[in-house]
Amino acid sequence: MSVYLNDIPLQEAQERLQKALSEAGLWQVLGEEEITLDEGALGRVLSRPVWARLSSPHYHAAAMDGFALRAEETAGAMPSNPRVLKTDEQAVYVDTGDPLPDWANAVVPIEQVEPVGAQGEPTDDLRHPIQIRIRMSLPPWTYVRPLGEDIVATQLILPAGSIVTPVSLGAIAASGHSTMWVSRKPRVAVLPTGTELVPVGHKVQRGDIIEYNSIVLAAQVNAWGGEAKRFTITPDRFELICEAVQRAADCYDLVLLNAGSSAGSEDFSSRVVEQLGELLVHGVAIRPGHPVILGMIRRSEQGGGAAKQVPIVGVPGYPVSAALTGEIFIQPLLARWTGNAAPLQPLEIEATLTRKVTSPAGDDDYMRVAVGEVGGRMLAAPASRGAGVITSLVRADGITVIPRGVQGLEAGAAVKVRLYRKPAELKNTIFVIGSHDMTLDVLAQYLTERGRRLVSANVGSQGGLVALRRGEAHLAGSHLLDPQTGEYNLSAIKQYLPNLPVRLVTWVGREQGLIVPKGNPKQIISLTDLTREDIHYINRQRGAGTRVLLDFHLQKMGIIPQDIRGYDQEEYTHLSVAAAVASGRGDCGLGVTAAAYALELDFVPLFHERYDLVIPCSFFEGDLLTPIFDLMADGEFLKAIHTLPGYDTSQMGNIVLDCWNNYADLFKGGL
Amino acid sequence: MSVYLNDIPLQEAQERLQKALSEAGLWQVLGEEEITLDEGALGRVLSRPVWARLSSPHYHAAAMDGFALRAEETAGAMPSNPRVLKTDEQAVYVDTGDPLPDWANAVVPIEQVEPVGAQGEPTDDLRHPIQIRIRMSLPPWTYVRPLGEDIVATQLILPAGSIVTPVSLGAIAASGHSTMWVSRKPRVAVLPTGTELVPVGHKVQRGDIIEYNSIVLAAQVNAWGGEAKRFTITPDRFELICEAVQRAADCYDLVLLNAGSSAGSEDFSSRVVEQLGELLVHGVAIRPGHPVILGMIRRSEQGGGAAKQVPIVGVPGYPVSAALTGEIFIQPLLARWTGNAAPLQPLEIEATLTRKVTSPAGDDDYMRVAVGEVGGRMLAAPASRGAGVITSLVRADGITVIPRGVQGLEAGAAVKVRLYRKPAELKNTIFVIGSHDMTLDVLAQYLTERGRRLVSANVGSQGGLVALRRGEAHLAGSHLLDPQTGEYNLSAIKQYLPNLPVRLVTWVGREQGLIVPKGNPKQIISLTDLTREDIHYINRQRGAGTRVLLDFHLQKMGIIPQDIRGYDQEEYTHLSVAAAVASGRGDCGLGVTAAAYALELDFVPLFHERYDLVIPCSFFEGDLLTPIFDLMADGEFLKAIHTLPGYDTSQMGNIVLDCWNNYADLFKGGL
Repeated sequence: MSVYLNDIPLQEAQERLQKALSEAGLWQVLGEEEITLDEGALGRVLSRPVWARLSSPHYHAAAMDGFALRAEETAGAMPSNPRVLKTDEQAVYVDTGDPLPDWANAVVPIEQVEPVGAQGEPTDDLRHPIQIRIRMSLPPWTYVRPLGEDIVATQLILPAGSIVTPVSLGAIAASGHSTMWVSRKPRVAVLPTGTELVPVGHKVQRGDIIEYNSIVLAAQVNAWGGEAKRFTITPDRFELICEAVQRAADCYDLVLLNAGSSAGSEDFSSRVVEQLGELLVHGVAIRPGHPVILGMIRRSEQGGGAAKQVPIVGVPGYPVSAALTGEIFIQPLLARWTGNAAPLQPLEIEATLTRKVTSPAGDDDYMRVAVGEVGGRMLAAPASRGAGVITSLVRADGITVIPRGVQGLEAGAAVKVRLYRKPAELKNTIFVIGSHDMTLDVLAQYLTERGRRLVSANVGSQGGLVALRRGEAHLAGSHLLDPQTGEYNLSAIKQYLPNLPVRLVTWVGREQGLIVPKGNPKQIISLTDLTREDIHYINRQRGAGTRVLLDFHLQKMGIIPQDIRGYDQEEYTHLSVAAAVASGRGDCGLGVTAAAYALELDFVPLFHERYDLVIPCSFFEGDLLTPIFDLMADGEFLKAIHTLPGYDTSQMGNIVLDCWNNYADLFKGGL
Repeated sequence: MSVYLNDIPLQEAQERLQKALSEAGLWQVLGEEEITLDEGALGRVLSRPVWARLSSPHYHAAAMDGFALRAEETAGAMPSNPRVLKTDEQAVYVDTGDPLPDWANAVVPIEQVEPVGAQGEPTDDLRHPIQIRIRMSLPPWTYVRPLGEDIVATQLILPAGSIVTPVSLGAIAASGHSTMWVSRKPRVAVLPTGTELVPVGHKVQRGDIIEYNSIVLAAQVNAWGGEAKRFTITPDRFELICEAVQRAADCYDLVLLNAGSSAGSEDFSSRVVEQLGELLVHGVAIRPGHPVILGMIRRSEQGGGAAKQVPIVGVPGYPVSAALTGEIFIQPLLARWTGNAAPLQPLEIEATLTRKVTSPAGDDDYMRVAVGEVGGRMLAAPASRGAGVITSLVRADGITVIPRGVQGLEAGAAVKVRLYRKPAELKNTIFVIGSHDMTLDVLAQYLTERGRRLVSANVGSQGGLVALRRGEAHLAGSHLLDPQTGEYNLSAIKQYLPNLPVRLVTWVGREQGLIVPKGNPKQIISLTDLTREDIHYINRQRGAGTRVLLDFHLQKMGIIPQDIRGYDQEEYTHLSVAAAVASGRGDCGLGVTAAAYALELDFVPLFHERYDLVIPCSFFEGDLLTPIFDLMADGEFLKAIHTLPGYDTSQMGNIVLDCWNNYADLFKGGL
């Protein structure tokens, strides 16, 4: 068994790798190549400084269209006392950029010149008159761009390590170069392994896992200046993996060995590394990503290149772990190998954490967060923590690292977020929280086209109102029935937001009913069926409007929740209720029509309900939310919503409660 | 003559173009294509939203290596009261990621299992025992990743308009897609025109201008999601340009017609547009960039594609104007055409302007600035304003727009800077100011390798000390001789920095002398030659150490400055003095050996002088400047300096004045 099985701190892992690379002569730029100056060079890294070969301009150049002349010969000229100069001898027409004749030291702009003929008579030939008349005296070097104004030969244009940009291509060309030396792109082999894997595009069976980590890793490598080669999937057989790794090590600069997700598969990786070289690290105290493996593989006799060893990174199988392993270990290595002096340094901002999180004390914990500005405060909302949830990375606006030794953070804590996005995008971010509705996905699409980004968190209707009170979102979706009044949302707002003026706007009407398997095999037709012994119900979480609706009707019908199997099993969205029914984990669940239809299930309609948006009045000041209101009257958008079944938009945009009413309500006790 | 000859405001110009494009059906995504999910898709823009086809996981998956079982059958199990389950019937081994059997609803981790044989005896066969013993009770769904935990089929994965990143490739694959729809890349023709132009790599003659604008424009187009095609240079002949433009318009989505730098050449462009289509704008009130032309070209009968018209941008010839025209007009158009929902939005920061600038009131003035943090203040130092100075764009850290109607800004004004660089790079920026020395270029290169960026401004030794006093730089290079004492820099520091504790460190010793043409044709051997009638001198600016040195020796030798021709003609660096001599603009100038040798000139050594670094003590607190001190003892760096002629590093690093001494000096009046 390996001595490295215990996780070691990140820094120590990085130091071990760096030491091994230094000893192998690989902690430096791998090589360089000379390439031509064209748009294909974009993003490459200069391996040598660029010193100017040529000055720019490389001669004294006219800075205006006009006549080049000797400044001395205009001495004393003035409006009432012109000088006349003979062309060719004393003055020569020049366009901007033209070289001055050797004898000239100034240019008079064409607008200041009177072209005249041999006898001094005016002429229309602006460019080739016989003489010119000038009524101004020019100091030497007027309207001349002297040699070297921009660039003086031998000066430093760009240091080695610079990344080639469009304008730097211009400066390199201007300084007399037609080629430049750049570091060669490190060649990286990406090896997916796992018997359970199937390539993208193949029909998946139960138990198949779509192999996409290699695509993510290859794309990362390319984005960071390397050149990735994706190998085909190697099944979990020791000798086959050894063979593939050796083949990769012989021809590439770096091997990324992506293990399957099981612990067994990771052990395979470490044994392969021990077999073919040296295992440096097995397990790093980071989360997610623990089972990272670092090592050096010996090149075989047939192996190309000067290096005798090739580093290998055993990348964990879970997709979030894999992508973070790329950021933490592979990106810095590629920066070193390309000599990139300014590698990807994410912008770091301060934000306020929206909810409490716990973290294992022994690990550096890389927490994905959504970031947005709400009411002038920058907020960081932790996303799903699971290593398997690739969507958490796609939706993440940044990463907050909870360092080793810290066991968690309280809500309201100030955290640093390494941003994946530009801050300008965050300003266009609308945080919507509360109850989930599928029309919000459609809204997200339409808002994107209008320069807004909708970030939604599904915490149920009540949770949404609480979040609004805490100033953690711009609006909340809510469908909270008041069992006393039969009204929607009004009493909840009074209860949860007594001091926050809001506007309550109707969004959609929708059907709620029981989501059941195709064909409704158990013949469920009403809530009374839920207590049947053969029925396993899928419930929504406390605070969800659908849960309130259920409880209201159960009470009305005299049904005791404890009699319902599965009543304690909570899901957080309509779609996950539907997914649970689709998977056979339950027999039915209350939800909206669209969720049932989306997963090709059947639907037993029971109730019609109103789904509203609750918007604090202070957010009407800017134009952040304007596109939402525009869309409420947008025919194309309404059509898109109607393609989802069970929705009614007839009341969309109705203002149920406006800021003023609310204020009035608040102060009706007397002011 | 065109009605559009007068510059119009930027916004109006953009609106005219947008209106014309809308009418032509071209103010929208140009088209889309279906591409496979791989690393080649990086940076493309989704033209359709991605809705999940498949849930992820798409079955109930084991979240640990262990045994799948029915949770009910573990009820009541505890350390003292184990349950024994038969494998295959009641428990089945699963790896992480494996699907659960239909009848199972929980996974017990392998570490919690005692594998036993038929008689209950322990066995080593972890995976295939006959029975397993369990001493814990598992709630249903323990260690199971339920179907849809990450992705539920039909949910929105990414909205149209998203840019494809490595992780988004993963999420799209995970949701059951093997291809995606992206907007097609707009095809952009880049046409350089001008008889004076020569392609990169050709030998240049006087008057030749190296054509590199097309490279910069093509690289911009590619960086912004287009596909550029560079045409060969068309000489300034009307019918040839018409032909090239028509050919380009027939096959491309956008034509960039890059005029020569002369006013005449620009008129050509507008006449071509009028001939082949409609001229929309001729001249925009922006600086630099005025002569921008916007228009629509009619496609000929042979022209491909559905569009009947193709937009054309007449790009000015000056390189800075050309690059900014790209940013202002072409980038937004490409973002529109690709449907990019988050186009390049430069980060905007606030900074303090270091010096007064003037600006034409009628123009939006795009001023390039260097940005760095000095003593906790973010400073913006305006770079050269010339439209011809491409290096000003390369060195620029950002752009400050002085809007129309504002005629200038005072030093100390708060300005907004649109950053070209990441803020983290600015934190690594060392501002060096003062006297120019060629070893600073070498230093810049070596600092780059050590994660620092050296930004230098050459304002002369005195100017440097003044800038330090104003807190505008981290260090100053100075070689100010005190005529009274013969000492370097000490008295100047006392005079200019009475209240700022600094460390004065010797950098290099160097020779100063007269830079003369190869072979010294006028036989100049000492300062006394400067008053000769046939000698035209090139001087340095007031405050430059070299100027002080000259004046000191002139006075000592009784030479009257007014007797020196060219005494009033000031250059700002040693290299520009050398360039002036090389070009024949003058016969000699005082400067350092290296400058003469760099331009292959001759050198008449006259004086030896000391060049020091002046560093405020407060900047020793962080580690920003540490690499400079490390380099003073770095053999490789010293070797690099010795390759420049005339330098002596024997005293490098000597501390002439330390903070304490300085304090002592300050307070010696009594404290």
